[in-house]
Amino acid sequence: MPSGIVTLLTDFGTADAYVGVVKGVILGINPAARVIDLTHAVPPQCVAVGALLLRAAVGFFPPGTVHVAVIDPGVGSTRRPILIETDGGVLVGPDNGVLTAAADALGRRAVRCLEKTGWFRRPVSQTFHGRDVFAPVAAHLSRGVPPSQFGSAGGGVVECRLPVPRWSDAAAALTGEVVHVDHFGNLLTNIDAAALERFRGSRVSVSIAGRRVVGPVSAYSAVAEGDALAIMGSWGMLEVAIRNGSAATMFAARAGTPVTVAAAET
Amino acid sequence: MPSGIVTLLTDFGTADAYVGVVKGVILGINPAARVIDLTHAVPPQCVAVGALLLRAAVGFFPPGTVHVAVIDPGVGSTRRPILIETDGGVLVGPDNGVLTAAADALGRRAVRCLEKTGWFRRPVSQTFHGRDVFAPVAAHLSRGVPPSQFGSAGGGVVECRLPVPRWSDAAAALTGEVVHVDHFGNLLTNIDAAALERFRGSRVSVSIAGRRVVGPVSAYSAVAEGDALAIMGSWGMLEVAIRNGSAATMFAARAGTPVTVAAAET
Amino acid sequence: MPSGIVTLLTDFGTADAYVGVVKGVILGINPAARVIDLTHAVPPQCVAVGALLLRAAVGFFPPGTVHVAVIDPGVGSTRRPILIETDGGVLVGPDNGVLTAAADALGRRAVRCLEKTGWFRRPVSQTFHGRDVFAPVAAHLSRGVPPSQFGSAGGGVVECRLPVPRWSDAAAALTGEVVHVDHFGNLLTNIDAAALERFRGSRVSVSIAGRRVVGPVSAYSAVAEGDALAIMGSWGMLEVAIRNGSAATMFAARAGTPVTVAAAET
Repeated sequence: MPSGIVTLLTDFGTADAYVGVVKGVILGINPAARVIDLTHAVPPQCVAVGALLLRAAVGFFPPGTVHVAVIDPGVGSTRRPILIETDGGVLVGPDNGVLTAAADALGRRAVRCLEKTGWFRRPVSQTFHGRDVFAPVAAHLSRGVPPSQFGSAGGGVVECRLPVPRWSDAAAALTGEVVHVDHFGNLLTNIDAAALERFRGSRVSVSIAGRRVVGPVSAYSAVAEGDALAIMGSWGMLEVAIRNGSAATMFAARAGTPVTVAAAET
Repeated sequence: MPSGIVTLLTDFGTADAYVGVVKGVILGINPAARVIDLTHAVPPQCVAVGALLLRAAVGFFPPGTVHVAVIDPGVGSTRRPILIETDGGVLVGPDNGVLTAAADALGRRAVRCLEKTGWFRRPVSQTFHGRDVFAPVAAHLSRGVPPSQFGSAGGGVVECRLPVPRWSDAAAALTGEVVHVDHFGNLLTNIDAAALERFRGSRVSVSIAGRRVVGPVSAYSAVAEGDALAIMGSWGMLEVAIRNGSAATMFAARAGTPVTVAAAET
Repeated sequence: MPSGIVTLLTDFGTADAYVGVVKGVILGINPAARVIDLTHAVPPQCVAVGALLLRAAVGFFPPGTVHVAVIDPGVGSTRRPILIETDGGVLVGPDNGVLTAAADALGRRAVRCLEKTGWFRRPVSQTFHGRDVFAPVAAHLSRGVPPSQFGSAGGGVVECRLPVPRWSDAAAALTGEVVHVDHFGNLLTNIDAAALERFRGSRVSVSIAGRRVVGPVSAYSAVAEGDALAIMGSWGMLEVAIRNGSAATMFAARAGTPVTVAAAET
C-alpha cells in the first residue's frame, strides 16, 4: 500500500528550478502525491554522502513511501536505472550505490532494472533522468502501480561500501571515523550503540584528533558551553559535538577523521 | 478547529535530512497535514532571531495552525517542552522564549508543559526533540487532539525579551535598533507605526550610523537607485533600505545598530 | 480547469520567513492548493534571470497551474500587477518582463492588469506585494476564479528581451552566449536544437573562451572525468559542461560569455 509520499534527495541545489520541475512532473502524474525534500545539498556527484543521508532518513517515513535519490554522475551512460523493493517502501534511482545502504536499513527485498521505458517522460533527455525517468516512475509507484510493472528482478547491483570501524587486536579499542559533518558542525561517526555495548561494564573514553572528549554523555548540557563531548546521536551513532559550537571547526575534522573509543583507564 | 497546517521554524539548515525527517514523522501521524517551512536558517541556537521571525510570520496563517519552533540549545537538559494556546493557533517548542513573542502576537491564552510523554516518538533521542517530541505533538494537534491532552496548564514560562525603543527626555526623538537584516540587506527595526504616530503633525527624520536617510517614503521608487531610504515595512516596522541595494552593506549595520527617528528640524 | 498547483519563483531567499508567509496567505484562501517552490534564489531584483528560469520550468507542470513570479524592484511604484493567460496556465506577477518569456513558452493568450483590488489582502503593504497582491490572486485563480474577474485585458506589457544568437555573414558560425550558470557550474546557452539543425549534414565544433570543447556529445561519459564537453541539455539548449566538474570555474565563464558553434573544419 503506497503512503502517497515521495521523498527527494539530490545534488541539484535549490538555486535553479530543477527540483521544482521534478515535482511538477510527479504532480502531473499523481496529483495527490506528497513530495518531501530530504536534501538537495549533497555535494555534486558524491554518491557516498547521498547514500549515508538517505540511510539515516528513510526509517522515519511511513511504510509504502517512495524514496527517490538522484546523485547521478553516470547519467546518460550505461549505468542502469533501478528500483529496490524493501519492507518499508520503494527506493528509486541510479544503480551506483546511492540506494543500497538505505535499502538494507529498510529490509531489502528485490532489485529491479527500470526496463519498461513506456513509463518514462518523452523524450528522455541526456542529462536529467531525475525529471524524465525517476520522477515519473516514482509518481506511478506512489499511485499504486506495482514495482513489478517497471522491470524484472535480479541481476547484480552496485553496492555502496560505507566505512566500518576497526577493533584493535585485543579488542580494547574501536577506531571508527567521521562519516558526516552536519549543519551544526557536529561530527557523526560510524560507531553505533551495538559497538559500544561491547564495552559494557567498563567506562569508555572517546578521542578525536589526539584529544579526549567528555562522554558519552546524555545531554549537551552535561558540559559547559564551548566544551567538547561525545553523545549517542539521533541517527543511533556516536557523535562528537561542542555544546553550542562547531566540533568541525574546533577539531578541524571532516569525513574520514578517525574517532577512537577505548576502555577508560581511570 | 485545526487548519491542518503545521509550520516549521528551526536552525537545522537544509543540508542534512533533519527537516525532511521531521516531516516524515508528522505525515506518519497525520497524512493530511500541510507542512510549511518558515525558515531553517536561524543561526544555530539563536533563540532571539527565531522568536522575532516567528512573531513576524504567524499572523499570516489561518486560525488553527500549529507552529513548531525548534531553536533548542537546551535539548536533553531540564528545559521543558511546551505548547502555548493562542487565539490564532497553537505554538509548540522548547520553553526558552522562542515562542512567547509570537504567542502574544496571536493572543496568548495558556501555556502547557508537554508532560504526557505517551504522545512522543519512542525512543526519545537525547539530541533531536524536534523529531521525537515536537513533531509528533504538532501532528496530533493538527488532527484535532485538544491541547489539554498534552499536559496541564500553568507554571512560569521563559519569556523572550526583545529590545524596546527608547524616547529621549523631551520625547523629541526615539532611538530603536536594527533587529533583523533580511536577505536583501534591508534593516528591520523595532520601531512600529504606533511609535511613529507620536510624531503626528511633524515631519520626521530617520538616521542610522550618523547619517540621515530619506523618508519615511511610501515606495522604494521615491529615491534614485542606490540611494538610502526609510519605509514602513511589511512587518509593520520601520525599515532602512537601499533602492535595489543592500543597506546592511552600505551602513555596515547589523542587529543592534541604533536607528533614530526625530522631529525634522526643517 | 485549475490544477490546484501554484508555483513560486522569487528573489526572497529562504533565510527570512517571507516565502512561508506567502504560502500561509495562499493556504488561507485555498486550503487545497499545492504550492511548489521553483526557486527563491534569483539574485535580488534580477528580472532577466527570473524570466529565464521561469521559462525553463513552466512547461513541466500540468495545464491549469498558476505560476507566481515575484522579482519586483518596482514594488510600490506605478508598475502594474498583471496576470497572463496562456494555453498552459496562468502567470501572475509584476509587469516588468519576468512573465513574458514563460507566457510565450506556454502559448500567450491575454494580459490582464490586476485592477480589481478587492481580491488583495488588506492593507496592501508598500513593499511586499508578493504577500498582499500576487499570493491572494494566485490562490483565488487556483480555486477556479476566472482570470477575467481580476481585471480587463489589453494594454501594453513590458517584454523581456532575452539575448538571441547571431549568425556570421556566411552563416558558417553561430555565436550565442551563456545565459545561466547552474548549481553544477554547467553553462546553459541560448543556442537551441533548431539552430543546430541549420548545420545538419556537417559536423560542428563548439568553442568558448577561445577553446574548443568536445561535442555535442550524447552523454557526459563520452569524455574523461574533468574534461570539457558540449551537450544538448535538459532545457533543450546547448550546454557546456565538465564531466563531474564545474565549467564555470574552468572557463571563468558567466552569463554573457560568448559560445560559438561552427561547421567543423576536420
